[in-house]
Amino acid sequence: MLIIHKYGGTSVGSLDRIENVAMRIAKARREGNDIVVVVSAMSGETNKLIEYASHFSKTPAKREMDILLSSGERVTAALLAIALQEMGIDTVAMTGRQAGIRTDENHTYARIESINTAPMKAQLKEGRVIIIAGFQGISKSGNVTTLGRGGSDLSAVAIAGALKADACEIYSDVDGVYTTDPRIEPKARKMDFVSYDEMLELASLGAKVLQSRSVELAKKLGVKIVAKSSFMEAEGTVIAKEDEKMEEVLVSGIALDKNQARVTLREVADRPGIAAEIFSGLAEEQINVDMIIQNASADGTTNLGFTIPESELERAKKLIAGFDHDFVGADYDENVCKVSVVGVGMKSHSGVAAKAFSVMAANNINIEMISTSEIKVSMIIDQKYGELAVRTLHDAYELDQ
Amino acid sequence: MLIIHKYGGTSVGSLDRIENVAMRIAKARREGNDIVVVVSAMSGETNKLIEYASHFSKTPAKREMDILLSSGERVTAALLAIALQEMGIDTVAMTGRQAGIRTDENHTYARIESINTAPMKAQLKEGRVIIIAGFQGISKSGNVTTLGRGGSDLSAVAIAGALKADACEIYSDVDGVYTTDPRIEPKARKMDFVSYDEMLELASLGAKVLQSRSVELAKKLGVKIVAKSSFMEAEGTVIAKEDEKMEEVLVSGIALDKNQARVTLREVADRPGIAAEIFSGLAEEQINVDMIIQNASADGTTNLGFTIPESELERAKKLIAGFDHDFVGADYDENVCKVSVVGVGMKSHSGVAAKAFSVMAANNINIEMISTSEIKVSMIIDQKYGELAVRTLHDAYELDQ
Repeated sequence: MLIIHKYGGTSVGSLDRIENVAMRIAKARREGNDIVVVVSAMSGETNKLIEYASHFSKTPAKREMDILLSSGERVTAALLAIALQEMGIDTVAMTGRQAGIRTDENHTYARIESINTAPMKAQLKEGRVIIIAGFQGISKSGNVTTLGRGGSDLSAVAIAGALKADACEIYSDVDGVYTTDPRIEPKARKMDFVSYDEMLELASLGAKVLQSRSVELAKKLGVKIVAKSSFMEAEGTVIAKEDEKMEEVLVSGIALDKNQARVTLREVADRPGIAAEIFSGLAEEQINVDMIIQNASADGTTNLGFTIPESELERAKKLIAGFDHDFVGADYDENVCKVSVVGVGMKSHSGVAAKAFSVMAANNINIEMISTSEIKVSMIIDQKYGELAVRTLHDAYELDQ
Repeated sequence: MLIIHKYGGTSVGSLDRIENVAMRIAKARREGNDIVVVVSAMSGETNKLIEYASHFSKTPAKREMDILLSSGERVTAALLAIALQEMGIDTVAMTGRQAGIRTDENHTYARIESINTAPMKAQLKEGRVIIIAGFQGISKSGNVTTLGRGGSDLSAVAIAGALKADACEIYSDVDGVYTTDPRIEPKARKMDFVSYDEMLELASLGAKVLQSRSVELAKKLGVKIVAKSSFMEAEGTVIAKEDEKMEEVLVSGIALDKNQARVTLREVADRPGIAAEIFSGLAEEQINVDMIIQNASADGTTNLGFTIPESELERAKKLIAGFDHDFVGADYDENVCKVSVVGVGMKSHSGVAAKAFSVMAANNINIEMISTSEIKVSMIIDQKYGELAVRTLHDAYELDQ
């Protein structure tokens, strides 16, 4: 079997932890597997380098940032290879360039365009374990590029796809994907399996195991991901195609996103193009709008409501102030949160949303906005009821069983 | 004018110092010069990475060490470029690979084979300052290589040669080359000029401004070096061809090397091949033998004396123990030092060595070994007289004037 391992910053956050990771890899190798490992920078390193750069400039050139930031993963890759060699495991370290990872020229947020697998295949044929510096690649013009936050996951998934690996094991300090945040609901259960689509919803809702970009790529390439902990021996959660799931589950998990703010524009003139103007303006400022609700117009005006990340509220306020000839006023509420019920089973079952609304009502929690997709029901509620909502929904869908 | 700047680890040892270096470069650029800058890792960084590696292995693979160690210079190059851009100077950072530096495959001590100057020339044509990560290159097979200690100086000199730069300014925390160590002789004088050959002797004798390898390369390529301080405005010392020197100076400087140990093999059998056997053995263990003295044989045996770096004495003792059937015993003396008088003027003037010996005699300092070259007289003496010898020689040759 060819297995890709990916170890995040916390898993390689100290020399002792790198040693621990080396022992895991050595064990997997001795069990007879071919292993390609993708590593992040030691935790704190990337932030340290970003801080260094910000000492000199608030808007450092992205090309130079990529030369700067790509160094952390190279250090981890070299150290881990040295540790494995000392354990008698034939190992080679590779930079993103050496691993054949070709990207576009979009510095600090590059997209992987292709992977030349020949160098990796040659090393695997020699029986070597390969340790690859994640998060980075090289562009056509020879520039060093990085893939953005969570980029090492992307590297790992892309490599797994290119090498047609049997699995891509993503190691972190969390031992899998839970039905909800265990700090909120102690009865939260680790799932054995979650589909790409469910994981996408959970990831975008704050489950920190994997970023959406990596899950999307895994779905596209058909890469089977296993989310595992590097600190314990446990099965982890498989993230794969829906039809690999053994039994149909109605609801997989409950997610809570507190980083939400609600904006309401009052009495917006009901003429074509206004919504486009407002949301284009927000998009240009790279403010991510999540839910949008507009009621039918009654008297030639309407209220337009939407949510954005709370961290982008101040920038949004400034921008909206410039539009104020189109509506009579704007209300802002940062004391809201988003609770979501996620599950592929919803596709074929009605009543999931209805049950969620009933649970809210039974607990006297007012639902301010609702948004649904094929496999998700999201509700905006008062922030103080967030944890209560998660626990009662977790209970109502019997997720602890 | 096209000027190469090179800044050592101390000169870029903190964010404030990088800012200071950026200001120097910006000034030189605004004076109308084309500038290519080569930087070392921030001081302490390379040693930190070596320590990290030694946590895992006493003999880490050199290929992986090169991936590890090359990261420090990349960080400095990126940060310095960002600082310059913020000052409004159009600047680009380049890794060793991007700067076209091709080396052999001799990891951790690679030799520069060629430099593809096209990428640098293209950037200079665009009017950009170039900041290059020193100490590193790329081999034909695409491996990252490093050039060994002092490698950034080598990068700078090689680039100066390839680009036919007008000068290669080497910045450090020392403001030039002195007639002797000012900590020993306060009257030591900074030289305006020193020839390649003199600098080679001084460098090999412990003058820390430049390593021999870089001076040799500068001599070969005809690169004019200027050794300067990055912490003050001062002229520095020009290191160039002898004939660029305005006036002939008899003696340029006095050097003291305390890292010396003397080995004497007593009553070595006087048959062919013994010296070869002993010194081949030492060479295989990479123990650098400096002076060698063998007297004519009297009674079929002879005493063989030589000096090695004191730090290699323990290894030498072990090795020599294995040879002990060829001589009756070995004496070791680590309480010796080497005092050298250096100057191109010696070539055409006799009496320089004689004066040195007289000075020693006048101070009752016993000379244990003597070695001379065209431009140097070296004497091994008791370590406790080292500083005294330096001061009296400095005085005798009137080097303070």
